Amino acid sequence: LKLKGLGEFGLIDLIRQKSPQGQGVQRGIGDDATEIRLPAGHHLLTSTDLLIENVHFRRDWTDWNSLGHKAVAVNLSDIAAMGATPRYLYLGLACPGDTDLADIDQFLNGVLDEASRYDVALVGGDTCHSPGPWLIAVTIEGSAPACQAIGRDGARAGDLIMVSGTLGDSALALQMLRDGRIPDAELMARHHRPTARVELGRQLAERRLATAMIDISDGLAGDLDHILQASGVDGVVDELLIPVSAVFENGTDSRPVRQELTLYGGEDYELLFTVSREKLAEIEALGAELQTTITRIGSVREGPGRIWLRDSTGATHSLSVRGYDHFCRT
Amino acid sequence: LKLKGLGEFGLIDLIRQKSPQGQGVQRGIGDDATEIRLPAGHHLLTSTDLLIENVHFRRDWTDWNSLGHKAVAVNLSDIAAMGATPRYLYLGLACPGDTDLADIDQFLNGVLDEASRYDVALVGGDTCHSPGPWLIAVTIEGSAPACQAIGRDGARAGDLIMVSGTLGDSALALQMLRDGRIPDAELMARHHRPTARVELGRQLAERRLATAMIDISDGLAGDLDHILQASGVDGVVDELLIPVSAVFENGTDSRPVRQELTLYGGEDYELLFTVSREKLAEIEALGAELQTTITRIGSVREGPGRIWLRDSTGATHSLSVRGYDHFCRT
Repeated sequence: LKLKGLGEFGLIDLIRQKSPQGQGVQRGIGDDATEIRLPAGHHLLTSTDLLIENVHFRRDWTDWNSLGHKAVAVNLSDIAAMGATPRYLYLGLACPGDTDLADIDQFLNGVLDEASRYDVALVGGDTCHSPGPWLIAVTIEGSAPACQAIGRDGARAGDLIMVSGTLGDSALALQMLRDGRIPDAELMARHHRPTARVELGRQLAERRLATAMIDISDGLAGDLDHILQASGVDGVVDELLIPVSAVFENGTDSRPVRQELTLYGGEDYELLFTVSREKLAEIEALGAELQTTITRIGSVREGPGRIWLRDSTGATHSLSVRGYDHFCRT
Repeated sequence: LKLKGLGEFGLIDLIRQKSPQGQGVQRGIGDDATEIRLPAGHHLLTSTDLLIENVHFRRDWTDWNSLGHKAVAVNLSDIAAMGATPRYLYLGLACPGDTDLADIDQFLNGVLDEASRYDVALVGGDTCHSPGPWLIAVTIEGSAPACQAIGRDGARAGDLIMVSGTLGDSALALQMLRDGRIPDAELMARHHRPTARVELGRQLAERRLATAMIDISDGLAGDLDHILQASGVDGVVDELLIPVSAVFENGTDSRPVRQELTLYGGEDYELLFTVSREKLAEIEALGAELQTTITRIGSVREGPGRIWLRDSTGATHSLSVRGYDHFCRT
């Protein structure tokens, strides 16, 4: 059965039937706009992302369910990086009329399963024909009590630089796929089914532990640069402290490769944040509570926004910043 | 100068520099998510739309400034149809790296001029490379006092059916373009630079005049059907009362053509709404106040959701509903 057999309004009905009603939703799918009642005293947090076939994903490398999962997770990660609670999801989907309904259904299951894991409701969107590639536009709205959200601009000299989880796994999986190799299941999942650190981000904000925060989508160097530029400080990262997984360690055979993947790889969707030194014990307690590894990888010092890398010999050198630039990559 | 010479972060900086700071914005462009403080007691209204090159627009039929204008106007129209105040805009933009910066600039000017006309601030989005077509994803957030927004489900037997402005102009312009003819400036503007009825929608809600409302994007028949289905009532439309412009009258030479364009053409972005009969004088006063033509085109009666058309002979027949279906059009 093809999408064009169901039609646009049939697809919207299907999505509506599959989507549980969200809390605070006054009017959901099926009106000109969605009407939401946010918790009193909360600010609204909104993030939006585009995912385009053959730019952000390839059909032959992923499955539809994972694609739906990832489309949601990368946006959840942006809300997590503000320390806010994700609440509502809007899905823009363009695909060819001859798309198999089974593929759409798998994609929607991926979207809805990942959203419901965080009590996020799919409450609106847009569907249309695409002349070729699948195009996915996801908008997530969340909320946080006033003055609780964490921006990129609060890092201060003396703060510690912390990161959740491990870095480089997603980039290693992508490199292997590009090389025609099949990553093992753990690496593959890090790339195709990333986990947004929603609870960690929210707790860091609620407990007022982080001074600045970002999620690592462009790579550690590029995203740390965003914090340092916004805060007007330098950062020193100790290369030996950058946390990597056993599967990453086993799958990489040289220091330059490891450095490239952890510093510049991106799509880790871990949280990178700065904390005042006296909060270190609280951070450790939070990590234990959430069973999430949180690693101190460096510190913040006075400066105009440079990144310094301390290597295994103890020597420190300035690090060039190059994140993924969409328009310059070709 | 090409987009790839500026780069992704250069483009984001350009957008940030061109965008005036919005009221209520705690954190705008340049963080993981945008943070907004909505007016106390207001509900959040959100609408999102995709615009895809060669599906929703053609480069050879429009200019970049008008495209930016329209991308915003069609979303404003959805917020207007809820009777809410549009406030914040998020722009997802994917285009090839070899796009001329002058084209991007014209597009952004169109977006920002149309947004600022309604005090709407561009506060976030996403930019990325497209392998081919331009892809535009617009999300607009607005707000309305609790219990003031107008849905599609409130039409009651005895209500009158009203429409703003004139219908069919946009569809006539599109038909002429498809036939290789050049529409005159007025028709062209109706198609390429539609006006969202923001103030009319808001006043209808504030004064509690409309029982149900929608904007006409799919055509009068399809959008009236949405109201009738949601409300569980029948509607009777008097064909002779459907308002058309002089330029439309002059540009169409047969009743079937006029009927096709006004009933099924779409992209009018006029407001279609129902009102209780005793509010008619207030509606007329509002139209005079806003210098906006508001026309009574029919009435609501008991029934399962059908549309009846009363033709020039006084005979009434059931009207088939066929809106634009993205997946079935090929």
